[in-house]
Amino acid sequence: MTSTNFTSATFDFAPLLPVGLPPPAARWTGLARYSFVGGNNDPEQLPLDGLIDAVNAVLRREGRTLATYGLASGPQGYRPLREFLTAKLQRDAGIACSADDILIVSGSLQALDLVNQTLLARGDTVIVEQESYQGALNRLTRLGVNTIGIPLDHDGMRMDVLASSLADLKARGIRPKYIYTIPTVQNPTGTIMPAARRAELLRLSEQYRVPIFEDDCYADLIWDGKRPPAIHAMADNDGVIHIGSFSKSIAPALRVGFIVAPWTMLSRMLALKTDAGSGALEQMALAEYCAPHFSSHVPKLTAGLRVKLDTLMEALNEHFGTTAEFDAPKGGIFLWVKLPDNVDTLKLCSAALAAGVSINPGPEWSTDKAYSKNRLRLCFASPSAEQIREGIAVLADICRKEFGVPVRIANVEKRAQI
Amino acid sequence: MTSTNFTSATFDFAPLLPVGLPPPAARWTGLARYSFVGGNNDPEQLPLDGLIDAVNAVLRREGRTLATYGLASGPQGYRPLREFLTAKLQRDAGIACSADDILIVSGSLQALDLVNQTLLARGDTVIVEQESYQGALNRLTRLGVNTIGIPLDHDGMRMDVLASSLADLKARGIRPKYIYTIPTVQNPTGTIMPAARRAELLRLSEQYRVPIFEDDCYADLIWDGKRPPAIHAMADNDGVIHIGSFSKSIAPALRVGFIVAPWTMLSRMLALKTDAGSGALEQMALAEYCAPHFSSHVPKLTAGLRVKLDTLMEALNEHFGTTAEFDAPKGGIFLWVKLPDNVDTLKLCSAALAAGVSINPGPEWSTDKAYSKNRLRLCFASPSAEQIREGIAVLADICRKEFGVPVRIANVEKRAQI
Repeated sequence: MTSTNFTSATFDFAPLLPVGLPPPAARWTGLARYSFVGGNNDPEQLPLDGLIDAVNAVLRREGRTLATYGLASGPQGYRPLREFLTAKLQRDAGIACSADDILIVSGSLQALDLVNQTLLARGDTVIVEQESYQGALNRLTRLGVNTIGIPLDHDGMRMDVLASSLADLKARGIRPKYIYTIPTVQNPTGTIMPAARRAELLRLSEQYRVPIFEDDCYADLIWDGKRPPAIHAMADNDGVIHIGSFSKSIAPALRVGFIVAPWTMLSRMLALKTDAGSGALEQMALAEYCAPHFSSHVPKLTAGLRVKLDTLMEALNEHFGTTAEFDAPKGGIFLWVKLPDNVDTLKLCSAALAAGVSINPGPEWSTDKAYSKNRLRLCFASPSAEQIREGIAVLADICRKEFGVPVRIANVEKRAQI
Repeated sequence: MTSTNFTSATFDFAPLLPVGLPPPAARWTGLARYSFVGGNNDPEQLPLDGLIDAVNAVLRREGRTLATYGLASGPQGYRPLREFLTAKLQRDAGIACSADDILIVSGSLQALDLVNQTLLARGDTVIVEQESYQGALNRLTRLGVNTIGIPLDHDGMRMDVLASSLADLKARGIRPKYIYTIPTVQNPTGTIMPAARRAELLRLSEQYRVPIFEDDCYADLIWDGKRPPAIHAMADNDGVIHIGSFSKSIAPALRVGFIVAPWTMLSRMLALKTDAGSGALEQMALAEYCAPHFSSHVPKLTAGLRVKLDTLMEALNEHFGTTAEFDAPKGGIFLWVKLPDNVDTLKLCSAALAAGVSINPGPEWSTDKAYSKNRLRLCFASPSAEQIREGIAVLADICRKEFGVPVRIANVEKRAQI
């Protein structure tokens, strides 16, 4: 309760709030017992000993630089980390850039904010993948930007639809500010865009003079380690802004991401990055750990993730049968699942949460609320194999109670024995 | 060079940029040889061994929680750090709050952003101290907010002027969104507002229903360790938003600050804090170090800072004589200096920088450009005693060449021997 009586203990802030604020956050009540949401990773795969060794080494060598706002390396971030990234991006993604072309940020979410602040104004139009990262879609909504969602197929964003959308927008005098894509382990569909389609995307970008905003934050997590070159690497102009993160490959709670962009754009983003630098200790720990260990760590991590994906798909097959449709992704930490048409995953989400299971309902990850109504995203890196199996069993139960599907529960006897 | 020819290597982003962007940043060219700017601290006083021990202990005990976006403690931040703050704020500032009343943020700059986003819209009015933190003033300018600067005396913000300003604004139908104050080691003047004046400020806040935004980020650094209660602690309503930081007491490159506010406001700020949490490793290291060591570390730090302040004041007396006027602050890391009326510190800043000396010109730290024209801020925590002495000698030289003052250079012979 608020009050305008100032002898009371409550000050009424409500009349001071500007219009358009998002609704207030609810009190946090803990993670769900079976949590299939969020970019959390497998705690068992966290390279803890290596990180501890790295922190010790880098702090003993140069820890006193922490007294200076990270500026021993300048506002673009800890230079050894940018130098590691230069080598890594060349090796893994084919990107030729120098440490001066990289801006270290506080997670790729800050990268989204900086790119958006640099390019977008209310009423602008951007192109996104029809199913896309919730955090990116929410930001665009909050900014009052029109989003055109391009449907995906097994190879990612459909270029035929993109071409006709760009032509249509041009005919209406609209030049979109960017084409946002997650081409390598697309979130949430898990697709990887082949090189030929990347080339076609670049051709359309040049034809319509619309820059590409390439979000590669899941690109390290591919089962066979093989990936096409980054779109940034294939461009023959510098009209691609490329972002990435260490959240998925090392640890999400270390808030470190990066932006690769031409100086004309980085200099604009730096002017907007008024945070006195991103956390230096986390940058130092990552640089020290990654330079010698990244290449050997990632295959171990992905092998473990692959096992968890198999567990999840087996559990879905067991408990949902043909009711749940999905394509096995070639990497990542999430599975995009289609349920029967009568299922509303927003309602399923609420009911499941009450039963201790958290899921991402499709409409929160798509610009097409009808198409995504019966779809959901399941993240599998964080829960244990046992939690995956139990959680999917509970989810199937809830889904059956709410929507009558799946009809047949294969493991009634087995569950009764637990 | 930019180009609209898309077969070239340059993509022309310029037509895509929204109006109102700040100018692009310049390439970083390193710290000045004699740097008297920024909230940097004394590297020798950084508690490096203690921080290393703390990082090792906390990572060995619970490092695997880094796999989960800091959410083992929820979005308000690492709970042991909030619990340390609860005890520290009670002991040092008299604030009675629980861990649930605290939001950990990525440095107090993020606190400024979150408070501003929660309360301000373009065209709003806020009240600030006439001389104030540049980062706060710049943010308000960028937001298109009108700032009313209240002059300070030796006891901080003048309540007589504040009272008449509030009355005047009310007569014009304007209710300011907040009164921003740095009451404890004011930045840049170094004053400490006495308890009686804090009480008067609270009375005016209640009378005019304008909340107080209390920035206490220098409050730990007081020579004798004695400080009045925080304004937040003295309030009998919850109309005070209190922020603080570990940048000044431990290490600026660890980007960790905090907000104490009622849930009606914290819940709004949390909804705007879309960064997936502040860096967990830095929060964990700070909590582990501070709980046992903060109280013994700070007096050692301030003793060292006090010696550097004395060195700076001696150097100013030696090289500027009566040309430089200042009051010895009771704490902090900066000295606010008045030069003769004919000196323009913006011009002095440019000339000094060319000679390797960086200073903060007064107009960047004040809402009154005329009053502050001949004033400057000198930060003394980061440079060594030798750098302080040499840098002030160079600054005096430059000032004399540019403005004819100081007339007499006391140490010509001594400098010739260097």
